[in-house]
Amino acid sequence: MDTSAAVTKPTTTEKPAITAALTDFVARTGFDDIPSEAIHRAKLSFFDAVGVAIGGSTEPGPRILARFVRESGGAATASVIGHGFKATPQYAAWVNGTSTDVNGWADFSVAHMNHPTASICPAALALGEARHATGKDVLLAYILGVEISNKIAQGVKPGFHIKGWHALGVCNTFGAAAAAGKLLGLDHERLANAFGIAGAEASGIKASMVTMTKSYVAGGSARDGITAVVLAQMGFTGPQDVMEARDGFLQTFGDGVDGRRMLERLGEPFEFVSPGLTLKSYPSCTHTHTGIHAALELKREHNIRAEDIESIECAVTPVVNDFLQWHEPRGRVEAKFSMEFCVASALAEGKLDMDNFADEKLASPVVRGLMRRVTMNVSPELARLGYNPDAAPSGCILTIRLKDGTEHVRHQYKGPWEPETPPGWDALGAKFRSCARGVIQAERIERAMTLLRDLERLDDVSRLMDLVCG
Amino acid sequence: MDTSAAVTKPTTTEKPAITAALTDFVARTGFDDIPSEAIHRAKLSFFDAVGVAIGGSTEPGPRILARFVRESGGAATASVIGHGFKATPQYAAWVNGTSTDVNGWADFSVAHMNHPTASICPAALALGEARHATGKDVLLAYILGVEISNKIAQGVKPGFHIKGWHALGVCNTFGAAAAAGKLLGLDHERLANAFGIAGAEASGIKASMVTMTKSYVAGGSARDGITAVVLAQMGFTGPQDVMEARDGFLQTFGDGVDGRRMLERLGEPFEFVSPGLTLKSYPSCTHTHTGIHAALELKREHNIRAEDIESIECAVTPVVNDFLQWHEPRGRVEAKFSMEFCVASALAEGKLDMDNFADEKLASPVVRGLMRRVTMNVSPELARLGYNPDAAPSGCILTIRLKDGTEHVRHQYKGPWEPETPPGWDALGAKFRSCARGVIQAERIERAMTLLRDLERLDDVSRLMDLVCG
Repeated sequence: MDTSAAVTKPTTTEKPAITAALTDFVARTGFDDIPSEAIHRAKLSFFDAVGVAIGGSTEPGPRILARFVRESGGAATASVIGHGFKATPQYAAWVNGTSTDVNGWADFSVAHMNHPTASICPAALALGEARHATGKDVLLAYILGVEISNKIAQGVKPGFHIKGWHALGVCNTFGAAAAAGKLLGLDHERLANAFGIAGAEASGIKASMVTMTKSYVAGGSARDGITAVVLAQMGFTGPQDVMEARDGFLQTFGDGVDGRRMLERLGEPFEFVSPGLTLKSYPSCTHTHTGIHAALELKREHNIRAEDIESIECAVTPVVNDFLQWHEPRGRVEAKFSMEFCVASALAEGKLDMDNFADEKLASPVVRGLMRRVTMNVSPELARLGYNPDAAPSGCILTIRLKDGTEHVRHQYKGPWEPETPPGWDALGAKFRSCARGVIQAERIERAMTLLRDLERLDDVSRLMDLVCG
Repeated sequence: MDTSAAVTKPTTTEKPAITAALTDFVARTGFDDIPSEAIHRAKLSFFDAVGVAIGGSTEPGPRILARFVRESGGAATASVIGHGFKATPQYAAWVNGTSTDVNGWADFSVAHMNHPTASICPAALALGEARHATGKDVLLAYILGVEISNKIAQGVKPGFHIKGWHALGVCNTFGAAAAAGKLLGLDHERLANAFGIAGAEASGIKASMVTMTKSYVAGGSARDGITAVVLAQMGFTGPQDVMEARDGFLQTFGDGVDGRRMLERLGEPFEFVSPGLTLKSYPSCTHTHTGIHAALELKREHNIRAEDIESIECAVTPVVNDFLQWHEPRGRVEAKFSMEFCVASALAEGKLDMDNFADEKLASPVVRGLMRRVTMNVSPELARLGYNPDAAPSGCILTIRLKDGTEHVRHQYKGPWEPETPPGWDALGAKFRSCARGVIQAERIERAMTLLRDLERLDDVSRLMDLVCG
């Protein structure tokens, strides 16, 4: 009698084999099955995320985590980006995922309220580096990981999100396991065990939102996905039906939803093609982007000066109002979730980048003065479209009233780098350089960017990681 | 402006400061505040758990995990029990917690459906060893950790359990953080951050129940509790109101319950005094103990032989029926959750210990023949007492009918080592030796037992850990 094999809990009623469909999809999908548009868009997101990780590595949270990982020691096979040392793949992915997410600047899935790349890119890179995988294999693993993360998030809407779960911490654990499992070539059964182990690790609550633990869980899911896969490869077992099992993922995290929507459009089309991922032009919560963009456009068009402004009104969708609760932010992280700060800072400076979140800028009398003139309310017009409407995700109707009585209004339903209006390599390159400057030598930045633009032809991703290790 | 300090989410209504009350309790309670009865009972549980950990270390799950940890490498400051090497405290606690839980043989909280010691003892020992803490400090940390784990489990009844969460993985993360935080002498505020980080790690679903991940989460919470505390000590921040925050623990894991019950009887009396912890005489699910005990007692009293038995009926409480779903177990782990197997094996051999779960015993024709004669049903009489009644936790009315028509009935409401009937040192010592035999040298076993019986006078727990490292 086999006492070590995985077991499946007896059930009295047949349930759809959701876990098996997900793991089977990962096991059988090859690079040639991915349409070129998905590959192109995945490369943009991946390129962008590596730059964002370099920029995030200097923040306080990743710095503390890197110190913990360095002091823990261990097999030095994967680069801790920006920190100049190597660690185990699971620990490197943990720090790098936290660095990628910490500024809220990696890509965002508006449809599923998830930042899939923040976890999946670091997971694929860390394990890929340790195993000297090719760029093509890492890219394939990444695309499949994002697909799995987002389809799981899709399958648990809306209860999961309303309940307060954090998709980066929870759904991305499975996505990271899918990516890591693909990289190691796990078969369908071992992948199912890895998903079972991932289900025992999946965690993340939105109470963390403005503390260091907000980005910690993005790294945590990368760490746990790798761990689950390496253990499954060694023969560790988990429930192979973790999604649909009694007392399984759908029952606990999914608030009892049946989860069939996880399989709707699985790879047909890929997430990167539709609904697509939103790249982030501004380093603040996605829900501030419409307000910022509208403010910058109105300021530019009408040459508005800070001292001429009487009031600024942001009428937003319910989801924007829910996320942006920091009306009087007391620090950099809170400021990224403050419509008042973001709009005021954008109007004061005519731009919004990382420099706007410097401590002295947060305390600037001009910005503070403008913040007092900003009000944010739910727009009845936008609320009629729903909580998080497809037509106007993060929708904002911005009204600027000047002291002379002039009024300027802009309806901004989407941010600047939505799937319909993706940035080109040049715009992303500028963001990459602005993130990496001062952390990595200029010449290395350029070489890393070249390798990333040609990712599918890179013979060994450790060449890339050596450049960005710092 | 301070940009690294923890932030508290603004709330519109005042909520009870549950997290603060819990962390304050941990920060201010000293060894002299613990009543001697709690200390005595905690020492019994702690002693027992170390033996159980040694015995569990040879099981397949802990063996794979130990291999993963060994290959990961790192600062070798804490013993991996039974495996003869040291690792980081977080990784050692992970393996040791898994070893402690894997046979389901560590103590059990009937009232809160939790195995607190399986996580808290390994967490306190691993960090205590790395920091050369005294036995007294480790014992205090352990008692406070168990108190926190169980009071959190108490506060989320019954939704948490019905929803399918696994207390070992979830509640014990906070308990392990409490123990580790006490050991490092964290102040109230850093402890609150550690609880916030623990909330970002807490995970565990009961779908894992009969796979290797079942015990994996007991170790995982020990690992995560230590990690949270070390990071908090370094200045990492989490939500300081993780329990009651919007999108916090009570909302997500607690299914929205208000959690005030977490503070009811916090240390008044301590969990070890009342409701008390059940020590486990048999190495199987606690819910099988009443059936096993009744069967052994009836067999002994009436000298019942296997070949004379016509049928065996187990009429049980609803919770027993829910947990013991493996009516035809296919392996050792499933057998521990099978009333049919446990009762049949006990009747065949006149005892139930680890040897009953050997592969050849599972396949024995005598046992298999008896299993076919066992039926388990919910007893209407016991069901009237509730799902998991205080008066008859795991209650079982066992009826054995012999082929000659004789019928023997025994009402067994509780197992043999309940809080009212704790085992003495000799009985626990026999269990300890049976667990440790073949893993640790006999002479070291005896020395470890001596140190454990006098735990509060041990100058450095690393002396104990060196003995049980293997």
